Amino acid sequence: MPAPLTIRMHERDNVAIVANDGGLPAGTVLPSGLVLVDKVPQGHKVALVDLAAGDAVRRYDVSIGTALRAIPAGSWVHERLLQMPAARGLDGLPIATVKPAPLPPLEGYTFEGFRNADGSVGTRNILAITTTVQCVAGVVDFALQRIRRDLLPRYPNVDDVVALEHGYGCGVAIDAPGAEIPIRTLRNIALNPNFGGEVMVVSLGCEKLQPERLLPAGTIPLGLERSAADVGTHAAQAFDLVCLQDDAHVGFMSMIDSIVATAEKHLERLNARRRETVPASELVVGLQCGGSDAFSGVTANPALGFCTDLLVRAGATVMFSETTEVRDGIAQLTARAATPEVAAALIREMAWTDAYLGRGEVDRSANTTPGNKLGGLSNIVEKAMGSIVKSGTATIAGVLPPGEKARHKGLIYAATPASDFICGTLQLAAGMNLHVFTTGRGTPYGLAQVPVIKVATRTDLARRWHDLMDLNAGRIADGDASIEDVGWELFRLMLDVASGRSKTCGEQLKLANALVLFNPAPVT
Amino acid sequence: MPAPLTIRMHERDNVAIVANDGGLPAGTVLPSGLVLVDKVPQGHKVALVDLAAGDAVRRYDVSIGTALRAIPAGSWVHERLLQMPAARGLDGLPIATVKPAPLPPLEGYTFEGFRNADGSVGTRNILAITTTVQCVAGVVDFALQRIRRDLLPRYPNVDDVVALEHGYGCGVAIDAPGAEIPIRTLRNIALNPNFGGEVMVVSLGCEKLQPERLLPAGTIPLGLERSAADVGTHAAQAFDLVCLQDDAHVGFMSMIDSIVATAEKHLERLNARRRETVPASELVVGLQCGGSDAFSGVTANPALGFCTDLLVRAGATVMFSETTEVRDGIAQLTARAATPEVAAALIREMAWTDAYLGRGEVDRSANTTPGNKLGGLSNIVEKAMGSIVKSGTATIAGVLPPGEKARHKGLIYAATPASDFICGTLQLAAGMNLHVFTTGRGTPYGLAQVPVIKVATRTDLARRWHDLMDLNAGRIADGDASIEDVGWELFRLMLDVASGRSKTCGEQLKLANALVLFNPAPVT
Repeated sequence: MPAPLTIRMHERDNVAIVANDGGLPAGTVLPSGLVLVDKVPQGHKVALVDLAAGDAVRRYDVSIGTALRAIPAGSWVHERLLQMPAARGLDGLPIATVKPAPLPPLEGYTFEGFRNADGSVGTRNILAITTTVQCVAGVVDFALQRIRRDLLPRYPNVDDVVALEHGYGCGVAIDAPGAEIPIRTLRNIALNPNFGGEVMVVSLGCEKLQPERLLPAGTIPLGLERSAADVGTHAAQAFDLVCLQDDAHVGFMSMIDSIVATAEKHLERLNARRRETVPASELVVGLQCGGSDAFSGVTANPALGFCTDLLVRAGATVMFSETTEVRDGIAQLTARAATPEVAAALIREMAWTDAYLGRGEVDRSANTTPGNKLGGLSNIVEKAMGSIVKSGTATIAGVLPPGEKARHKGLIYAATPASDFICGTLQLAAGMNLHVFTTGRGTPYGLAQVPVIKVATRTDLARRWHDLMDLNAGRIADGDASIEDVGWELFRLMLDVASGRSKTCGEQLKLANALVLFNPAPVT
Repeated sequence: MPAPLTIRMHERDNVAIVANDGGLPAGTVLPSGLVLVDKVPQGHKVALVDLAAGDAVRRYDVSIGTALRAIPAGSWVHERLLQMPAARGLDGLPIATVKPAPLPPLEGYTFEGFRNADGSVGTRNILAITTTVQCVAGVVDFALQRIRRDLLPRYPNVDDVVALEHGYGCGVAIDAPGAEIPIRTLRNIALNPNFGGEVMVVSLGCEKLQPERLLPAGTIPLGLERSAADVGTHAAQAFDLVCLQDDAHVGFMSMIDSIVATAEKHLERLNARRRETVPASELVVGLQCGGSDAFSGVTANPALGFCTDLLVRAGATVMFSETTEVRDGIAQLTARAATPEVAAALIREMAWTDAYLGRGEVDRSANTTPGNKLGGLSNIVEKAMGSIVKSGTATIAGVLPPGEKARHKGLIYAATPASDFICGTLQLAAGMNLHVFTTGRGTPYGLAQVPVIKVATRTDLARRWHDLMDLNAGRIADGDASIEDVGWELFRLMLDVASGRSKTCGEQLKLANALVLFNPAPVT
């Protein structure tokens, strides 16, 4: 039997988590001399001192709740023994009070990317077929098979063809408050750097989300290669449209022929592109965690946080998200805001989400899952502390409302729900060209639009899911690697994946999840 | 040039619609002697008399709005000339006042279906793989390709294998009011008669929607072929579960192998089934319209309404839906309710939707689309009158809240939003084994789970979309067929399609839309 191993996050914490696979039995003597009163599962908390009823249970140097009854030292501190604290109010927060010395620039790191006309850089070279409405999905799927079978082999520099399908576009209250979120999300996904500025749209014709509403004139920047004389007409040229209800379509195959022919024009242009060496500052990285456990905040997320600092030092854009998973750390975030305006934007997004959840008669505590709790996370406060750590230590340079496109470098809070699919979809809209996803319980999550690097929080998961996990941060808990080691490893892996030198596990297996839009407005 | 043709729905109407392809130019002399003042597009309304500002504009013998200014006879009455009336209140409605003589039974009509252990009948023999959460979709898609390629050819009596994928299952407020709707929807879809009672589930493991919450013990009826001795254990046996996070899974291919092996057990049982002759009363038909125009309420929906009466007379279950499209006809519906309880349930569903839309700061008028208006439908009142006619003349025997399973024969109001995909998904949950969809502007809508018969409202659409439309109701406007002719034709086509003798256009082309769940609760 390996030596008992527990992990305490901060010297003021009065609980630690059990790191050993399979947990530790009652009677185990810890190196400190403390004897376990209960069997404690892996990832779960043990009381390091005697706690009286009402005492704060501290992890990450914050109170994650108060003890509902006396808890003797050595006991298993599970969620049924904890009273969750109320969410901190949004008044009187510390505003931009943390003024760290600027992180030293990290120079000389590059990757091989596809430079776009608007200055952005793709990490993959993909033809995306934007759809205005779910109605066209069956036809687009048919055309997609044709394109992949008949055309793609003739354009070897193009990595893939994907259809941007979704449940939106009609049967929705398209003028209601909040409807702007799914609409701008779809618009900005069409403009993701991995699609090379080649925008083609398939519409039905009678739907609420008309193509010119989805992509109004001027949303697609004029390509650098086009002359100024084109300016007067670029709005009309900016995207190619196939409308199924066009009178010109006679029979199903005429629709397919239109889509395939339109796709070929774009494939020709995409195929002519070549990777070039660009600075690491061109990375736009979306961070997420899912299927979290108590190790998420101990291994993978701290390593990711270290890597976030490296990315910020290299001048890249890094987005962290998942509002319900940072809500309990709002005071940390407003303190870290670069300016009072950034702090105000953070508070605005939290307040919006509080109100949104309140209308549905829930609060941020609706976030946690059965798997989180099995994995040792007692409540949303504890989960949030482990989640927020992936944002590293940099100043928060900006806040992005859901569905909007990131326009600044540095660390950005991209406000999104915590649903893996909705968050990933919104980060795609924000312009993400690389995605990092940490997981404790394990998820085969993937996207067709950008590479997703998956990081395991535990060695057991990394071992069993050896062809689904790209990196094992569990070595930190095993004592085999430091947070810094894994952070640097992840940074280098990012550059490899961004360059196309490495493909992620998800890419190799072609695992992709659906786009799921965030639509806070009603359906009709 | 063909003779000018206009259609008036009721002798008290003061407008008629232009039926001619391409509309009619100003100066056209109608058979009545009326001269058109404006060019009037096809499907749009012409004033038959001089209307003063404030006069009611009548179509279907109801006021669809009041004239915003004086409108001379022969003018084009478009939506900008109309003030839409407020929605009728839900108090003081006529309750079960219409007591038509019962429709005479229609006997002797049968189809060839797959009889299930619970007594229901499938029109197709499909293996459905239920998923608890979007997380597993990439893995399930991979397995599905294997099953279709390697197994399906060996089980020729099985029509298809489909994955029931969706955006729900985690990242949602699963205990919020309204969350019961998506959960019971998924549960009841898994039990759709076309899946033969063979329920297999793929779950991740840590998701909020745990398999036992999706399918609690007792929801799957004990198969007739199983002995009473099984009763004690049937809950555990009722569905097969593959959980990706199970410790037994080592590597991606072990997950695929588990899914494929589980699928094969079910394919073996499904393959042993044979069609048998069953009465037409075993049909459970979901009615929908989408991409509606002014002809929807003149040709396809009246023919469908006639067919609805035939189905009710044959003892079948027929569901009409789309709450925002019947809201303006609530007085007709409560009057047609079989009992005061049914009328109360209708009012309850309308009130629920009024409140749901109100929370989003919209009302039922958010329903209409640009295509509806181009097609001549000025507002939701006019659209509703054309939509409701597909319910025929029978007494309304029951009301089904969204996501629940139909348990009664006869005409049922299945309360759903009007979104084509959400409505179709909810009708699948209700137990639909045949779907009829009328369209004016044209949509390639289809489902992988049940056959969808598509009916065109106009000959022009039926001609251009000859391989996408199963029936042309436009012949009614052309004067080439009566409503009764097309209604009978549709009834016979239904029996052919239900029997597998005919495949629909959508089935031949394998056109399928995504399941889209109705989740009125927040995401987290």
